Amino acid sequence: MPYDPNNIFARILRGEIPCVKVYEDAKTLAFMDVMPESEGHVLVVPKEDAQDILDLSADGLSAMMATVQKVARAVDKALAPDGIQLRQYTRAAAGQTVFHVHFHVLPLWEGAHLAPHGKVMVEAAKLEPIAANIRSAL
Amino acid sequence: MPYDPNNIFARILRGEIPCVKVYEDAKTLAFMDVMPESEGHVLVVPKEDAQDILDLSADGLSAMMATVQKVARAVDKALAPDGIQLRQYTRAAAGQTVFHVHFHVLPLWEGAHLAPHGKVMVEAAKLEPIAANIRSAL
Repeated sequence: MPYDPNNIFARILRGEIPCVKVYEDAKTLAFMDVMPESEGHVLVVPKEDAQDILDLSADGLSAMMATVQKVARAVDKALAPDGIQLRQYTRAAAGQTVFHVHFHVLPLWEGAHLAPHGKVMVEAAKLEPIAANIRSAL
Repeated sequence: MPYDPNNIFARILRGEIPCVKVYEDAKTLAFMDVMPESEGHVLVVPKEDAQDILDLSADGLSAMMATVQKVARAVDKALAPDGIQLRQYTRAAAGQTVFHVHFHVLPLWEGAHLAPHGKVMVEAAKLEPIAANIRSAL
């Protein structure tokens, strides 16, 4: 399956669809997942057109992971979760729903249940204060 | 909590405990998870003493992820799974059980159930042919 330039993350990267931004640099963008599994669930994408981690260039991978680490540290500082998971899904059988490579940064709290992946939409106005909190810890 | 130099992955890195090796270079080691959640479950660790992804140096992160990608591509080629998940757990609340930073490379098949994380040990003799298959695709 070739890369689809109209996938939702490609459209966010082109500014055609809004996002609640956490961090951006020349090669990557981090924004709030609008269907968060937990409070503070952030997605990190490279600006390179790559469908999954297998396709991504070495340079794109390095840039994406530097941003993942930066965001994970900020999430940890801002939200003080009990733990953090990083997840990356390649192909639908592994849970991939948007076919532009992305990493999930998922803060977790003891005893809290995760929302199902990609099921319940949260409005931007509710995500923005969380994003602001994370941004202030970058 | 400071880094414990006697955690099991540190001992594997020092050669005090055997592992079923998939790949090794100057900065990283990849080996079969002895309690695999699926067939072909590989762990990737940096040789740097770091407890979790938050502690890891930029250089260690870059090296670890290059190996993660290399192993994921080989797992994909050798085992032809329907999908692949990458996972990284920071702190016990997120599922971390060994306190040396590591990434899980987890091939998945449609309809197959995952074994529980870190519960059922598989003997090295059964893991070696799978590792050999993955190594041949590196």
